[in-house]
Amino acid sequence: MNLPSVHDASLANAIRVLAMDAVQKANSGHPGAPMGLAEVAQVLWTRHLRHNPADPAWLDRDRFVLSNGHASMLLYAVLHLSGYDLPMEELKNFRQLHSRTPGHPEVGLTPGVETTTGPLGQGLANAVGLALAEALLAMEFNRPGHTVVDHHTYAICGDGCLMEGISHEACSLAGTLGLSKLIVFYDDNGISIDGEVDGWFRDDTVKRFEGYGWHVIPPIDGNDAAAVEAAIERAKRMSAEGGGPTLICCRTVIGKGSPHKAGTEKVHGSPLGEEEVAATRKALGWAWPPFEIPEHVYRGWDCRPRGGELQAEWQHRFDAYAAAFPEQAAELLRRMAGELPAGFDEQARAFIAATAAKGETVATRKASQLAIQAFAPAVPEMLGGSADLTGSNLTDWKGGAPVMVGSESLQPGRYIHYGVREFGMAAIMNGVALHGGYLPFGGTFLTFSDYSRNALRMSALMKQRVVHVFTHDSIGLGEDGPTHQSVEHAASLRLIPNLHVWRPCDTTETAVAWAAALRRPASIGMAVHDGGPSALLLSRQNLPFVQRDEPTVQAIARGGYVLRDAAQPRAAIIATGSEVSVALAAQEQLAAKGIAVRVVSMPCTQVFDAQDEQWRAAVLPDGLPRVAVEAGVTAGWYKYVGLHGKVVGLDTYGESAPGGVLFKYFGITAEHVAAAVEQVL
Amino acid sequence: MNLPSVHDASLANAIRVLAMDAVQKANSGHPGAPMGLAEVAQVLWTRHLRHNPADPAWLDRDRFVLSNGHASMLLYAVLHLSGYDLPMEELKNFRQLHSRTPGHPEVGLTPGVETTTGPLGQGLANAVGLALAEALLAMEFNRPGHTVVDHHTYAICGDGCLMEGISHEACSLAGTLGLSKLIVFYDDNGISIDGEVDGWFRDDTVKRFEGYGWHVIPPIDGNDAAAVEAAIERAKRMSAEGGGPTLICCRTVIGKGSPHKAGTEKVHGSPLGEEEVAATRKALGWAWPPFEIPEHVYRGWDCRPRGGELQAEWQHRFDAYAAAFPEQAAELLRRMAGELPAGFDEQARAFIAATAAKGETVATRKASQLAIQAFAPAVPEMLGGSADLTGSNLTDWKGGAPVMVGSESLQPGRYIHYGVREFGMAAIMNGVALHGGYLPFGGTFLTFSDYSRNALRMSALMKQRVVHVFTHDSIGLGEDGPTHQSVEHAASLRLIPNLHVWRPCDTTETAVAWAAALRRPASIGMAVHDGGPSALLLSRQNLPFVQRDEPTVQAIARGGYVLRDAAQPRAAIIATGSEVSVALAAQEQLAAKGIAVRVVSMPCTQVFDAQDEQWRAAVLPDGLPRVAVEAGVTAGWYKYVGLHGKVVGLDTYGESAPGGVLFKYFGITAEHVAAAVEQVL
Repeated sequence: MNLPSVHDASLANAIRVLAMDAVQKANSGHPGAPMGLAEVAQVLWTRHLRHNPADPAWLDRDRFVLSNGHASMLLYAVLHLSGYDLPMEELKNFRQLHSRTPGHPEVGLTPGVETTTGPLGQGLANAVGLALAEALLAMEFNRPGHTVVDHHTYAICGDGCLMEGISHEACSLAGTLGLSKLIVFYDDNGISIDGEVDGWFRDDTVKRFEGYGWHVIPPIDGNDAAAVEAAIERAKRMSAEGGGPTLICCRTVIGKGSPHKAGTEKVHGSPLGEEEVAATRKALGWAWPPFEIPEHVYRGWDCRPRGGELQAEWQHRFDAYAAAFPEQAAELLRRMAGELPAGFDEQARAFIAATAAKGETVATRKASQLAIQAFAPAVPEMLGGSADLTGSNLTDWKGGAPVMVGSESLQPGRYIHYGVREFGMAAIMNGVALHGGYLPFGGTFLTFSDYSRNALRMSALMKQRVVHVFTHDSIGLGEDGPTHQSVEHAASLRLIPNLHVWRPCDTTETAVAWAAALRRPASIGMAVHDGGPSALLLSRQNLPFVQRDEPTVQAIARGGYVLRDAAQPRAAIIATGSEVSVALAAQEQLAAKGIAVRVVSMPCTQVFDAQDEQWRAAVLPDGLPRVAVEAGVTAGWYKYVGLHGKVVGLDTYGESAPGGVLFKYFGITAEHVAAAVEQVL
Repeated sequence: MNLPSVHDASLANAIRVLAMDAVQKANSGHPGAPMGLAEVAQVLWTRHLRHNPADPAWLDRDRFVLSNGHASMLLYAVLHLSGYDLPMEELKNFRQLHSRTPGHPEVGLTPGVETTTGPLGQGLANAVGLALAEALLAMEFNRPGHTVVDHHTYAICGDGCLMEGISHEACSLAGTLGLSKLIVFYDDNGISIDGEVDGWFRDDTVKRFEGYGWHVIPPIDGNDAAAVEAAIERAKRMSAEGGGPTLICCRTVIGKGSPHKAGTEKVHGSPLGEEEVAATRKALGWAWPPFEIPEHVYRGWDCRPRGGELQAEWQHRFDAYAAAFPEQAAELLRRMAGELPAGFDEQARAFIAATAAKGETVATRKASQLAIQAFAPAVPEMLGGSADLTGSNLTDWKGGAPVMVGSESLQPGRYIHYGVREFGMAAIMNGVALHGGYLPFGGTFLTFSDYSRNALRMSALMKQRVVHVFTHDSIGLGEDGPTHQSVEHAASLRLIPNLHVWRPCDTTETAVAWAAALRRPASIGMAVHDGGPSALLLSRQNLPFVQRDEPTVQAIARGGYVLRDAAQPRAAIIATGSEVSVALAAQEQLAAKGIAVRVVSMPCTQVFDAQDEQWRAAVLPDGLPRVAVEAGVTAGWYKYVGLHGKVVGLDTYGESAPGGVLFKYFGITAEHVAAAVEQVL
């Protein structure tokens, strides 16, 4: 195949002018990084990236992540130029409502965008996840003589990404796991928003990444296309040899091409201004008006012919694979489509029914492990893990062998020891989900959801099916004390749009929650479905099993339901998780006094809120006085109990003491709940 | 002064037995790390740490941070043994309610504990903040021939801390800033909760820290007291030479002393068991029963005589300083006590009045800068900064020179360029506040409060006076799109107990918010006051100034107040920040229809909630229908509007488009608010 010359400067300059013109037109945006990275993008996209603009969903395409997402015009420019379905009109509408060119790249909105980036460092962690998924999928599905999963993950990151802590977590783990098909470009332009980074960032990045076990290509001139070409060739050779990911350090000039602003922070996040735009055009010798690209430049950029050939060659290989291994081929396609195994619904029903019948009193973290044990063998895409709390989170299961690194390379497995890297774990799981082929879940203590919070938000924004197992919720964990007691976390996770937060009260609710989390639709590339992540908030301590009839078991999936009613109830007690048993005890105490109350279990407020008005009104009829009880901050519950209801909870931090002592100390007791009910009557 | 021998094994073994016995008695806790670190603690505490157990508040004491806070029994044991006011009864009550020995160390509760640790990595960042405060204070207050601020910061951290991303942020910045008086011990025991770390953590930590510009002492046998002694001596020499912090890598055996469990994860987080406790006693040749320490061991450990001498020598120096520089000495004591300058209240009143009179329409981030400019010159402890968004956060001011690193050493200044390190910044600010002498504030975009969230929680838990300047709130920032638009952050920060969240609507409210944030009492060491951190949520875009009479200006400090009333209002509209002007416009539209409504501005819900019942009822009388409007998630507002009120907000993610377009698109308009009012009437 003929590749365009590395020496054709017009290919890189086309990126420069599109970036500066689009930012100028929008009067907002970041021209500096796209202009500085033009040669890197030119050489990577036109000569190395194995992609087909005509089919952004090609299973075995190389993945590309722009971790410094504010450089979005770099990506939009190359997507447009290389032939993706991103017409010039979209570039003219940069940063306008409902354009396909938002301020930061958004997966599912723009063909060729593999992940949503902007919050720095996370794209890099997503890239680690993409590379991890590729490595695992290749081990699982390739057969001797049949290589159908074999692609690179490329990422670009800037100084900002490398200052962020998550870059350490993700890159350290990538080095440990030896993810050799990950190749990262470090845009070392020496400038961040506050100016020359030397005042706040003096890392020897080469040494740092060598410390992680990466191959490092020491600084090249990233604005020299031939040097970029040589570095990528070298990186691909090292990648083929194995032993770890590769970092290519590229010294670039931010805003390269702008005669008066290049190399300064002025070009980072503001339009150049009409005058400087004109001066830049002149300096680049670019004769064409804004948003006009000459035909020879389009020809040089067009990646569709080569992409078509690459994909056809792969399809040929895949067809041979499908002929030789029809079941594996079908399974690979199913998994990459994000569809659950055909029998899943039946399996889930049976497991929930068996759980309801068995009636075990265990901690909900243990109930979660029982659910994992029930589902994982028949749902081979489930890929577990924990941020170094496996024995506490109980995220492991029999048959879920850990992914370990042997003397040379990764060993196949279904469980990732993420190490003490909560944020990295969550963002890597996002990358795994984005890749397709796996359904990642991972555990940590609920209080450390704070560490990973923005990655949860990103998976919710991207509608990615990821399951977070957060154990040791509330004060029930006891002696570890206030740093580990998640008094505000349940309430605060519920505020993240599109994150389903389940706080089950026993084995049956936990089984239903797990089934619901697995059943949320997966979004892969442009195939965006109405799905998203789930968080399961689970107890360290045992929670009593609650007996339910069949319709009540069915009702759990509604998110909120009448768990135990009374004839003509005079009030409703709403509870979740470990406080459901407190509510039931209060109900009995009140019944003994002749006060009939209803107990509503509300394991998932978001799912309950999404039920039709009829269901919600049946569970919580207008006019019925209400008391909510949850061992955490109270503010969120007024939505359900109103100004004249009561909330039994705690609005302070916890204490270090045995869990049982704390429930009494903080008044999360049946007596207090019963008293609150009497007050609202 | 006579120092105890490094060769007296009974000193280290006393730590071991206290740790294993206390964990055994509590039937919960972490014996492994204290047992592995016993020699490090013995040598550091008895021979090097400049501290005086009789006065834990000694201004110039060395600071010590146990970043791996789960090893709390290490700290409690050495505090007890070295003579702090921590009697044996407290060790017997390890992890029990209201003991001074909670599961993780808590500052303010236990004398000698400098910071609350547990969430891994943050202690290390606190230590960087402590060392930064020391370096700045020394430059500011020492005079030729008068060195009154001159102490080290020592920290111990484990594998977990070094896997956490925040360790990268904090240690990279510490290297850049050349904080030479910071000495960190890395407890390299090769074990984390999931087992041998080799499967998930293979960093070459020496190389990594050399990449940060640290001095690194390569692995020593951390269980060899003589080797520890030599390493500390060497570290102190390097510290004196300058050039950067020092990391001492200590290979230790987790649970050292336990014949059957040492060196395994079994000893990390569970009691040894009675049998193994007995076997360990035997193996150590420890003849005494639990919680009994022989007199010769107490004698060897007693740090009070040496501490008294050290402090007396310092006091002598300080007295000479106070004689030569009485103003500086008084100022240093004032600042270390956390008291504001005497004239502050008057200054604040005058600035607020001037702001109210001036009536400027600017963005509240600009209003914040005006407040900083007004307060900082007269409040020299204010130490600003930003996570690489200075020009956006507007956290800088005229006269606030940045702390930069010259060719050799740190330059004095009052502004920290933290780099793109939000979590690191927040945790370093906690360390600065814990040290005393400075009142740190720092900026980033509100959406990135997610990154720093757990450090905000920690400052709230520790009651530390830290001010977070979070700009670009809500959808008003516009084109940067949903990754940057903080729809759930205001609501979710309000859930963190003891964090005051201000979302001011104009210059006057911003001035009041800043004054309130600065006025929250500082907590220093055991002097715990009812203070804490504040977060200011500020707009990127201009917000119209609102005219108020004097009593209304006074009312702002109540957190929620009647901004503009009407005769016999039929409803109240509650608004914050950028939506206050929307509420006022709705009020006018309704007035034109003959519907009188009251507008309540609620810049700080926590402060409003803390007002007496009379104030709250006067602002929001029972029975008055209510509508709330805020450009974010709605759930939190039902606490104020009830089941029959309405909330105008958005429960989805934002979009990339100009801010004005978005307010219309999402219906955050006067028309919608007016319509909502008509619905609730």
